[in-house]
Amino acid sequence: MVNDQMVLDRGFAALAHPVRRSIVERLTRGPATVAEASRGSGISKPAITKHLRVLEDARLVQRTVEGRTHRLVLVAGAFDDPACWIDRQRELWERKFDVVDDFLAEQQSQSEPDTPEPREAR
Amino acid sequence: MVNDQMVLDRGFAALAHPVRRSIVERLTRGPATVAEASRGSGISKPAITKHLRVLEDARLVQRTVEGRTHRLVLVAGAFDDPACWIDRQRELWERKFDVVDDFLAEQQSQSEPDTPEPREAR
Repeated sequence: MVNDQMVLDRGFAALAHPVRRSIVERLTRGPATVAEASRGSGISKPAITKHLRVLEDARLVQRTVEGRTHRLVLVAGAFDDPACWIDRQRELWERKFDVVDDFLAEQQSQSEPDTPEPREAR
Repeated sequence: MVNDQMVLDRGFAALAHPVRRSIVERLTRGPATVAEASRGSGISKPAITKHLRVLEDARLVQRTVEGRTHRLVLVAGAFDDPACWIDRQRELWERKFDVVDDFLAEQQSQSEPDTPEPREAR
């Protein structure tokens, strides 16, 4: 349980920075070198290294080293845990509204008279 | 754009702590007082106040004050922005694999001979 919570903590925290999201967005298009994945971020190499470490610790991104080239790839099922948690909460919340809708519909059907209205009976 | 990024930063950061997720989980079942929403968290009132402020700043949770009672409710569409971002990345990533599948299927269909194999022709 603690482990699941840590996975979610790290996953959500990793996505809570525009530079890290931008790296992930680049990697959805395919593997990239560190330079390619961080292009346009306008921040220093040490800062990129820190952001990459956060993404790697969250198991969203995997790094392979080929000679001098560090290649980054999105981990299979990277978003499964945070997406699953969010979907579950939305589902529970929407179900709550369904229950309210059902209740209101039932109330309405009960208030509909079986016999004609007095005015119509006149 | 900067605004959208800030919404995502705050949304994901708000969900990156088990106490805040636990409050959100409680609120998916309906509005609750602060005491009800934080029951079982085992942390101090000032700590709860800080976590609630993070959830309110991220526009996930809204607080209404009725006399002495602070009532919490999940904001409508609370998860829309983070969920939408995650769904988009998954879609892009899966589409990448679809392209690879299509390519492989095409390669395979091209390698299938129109004429019988030499061995069969013998």
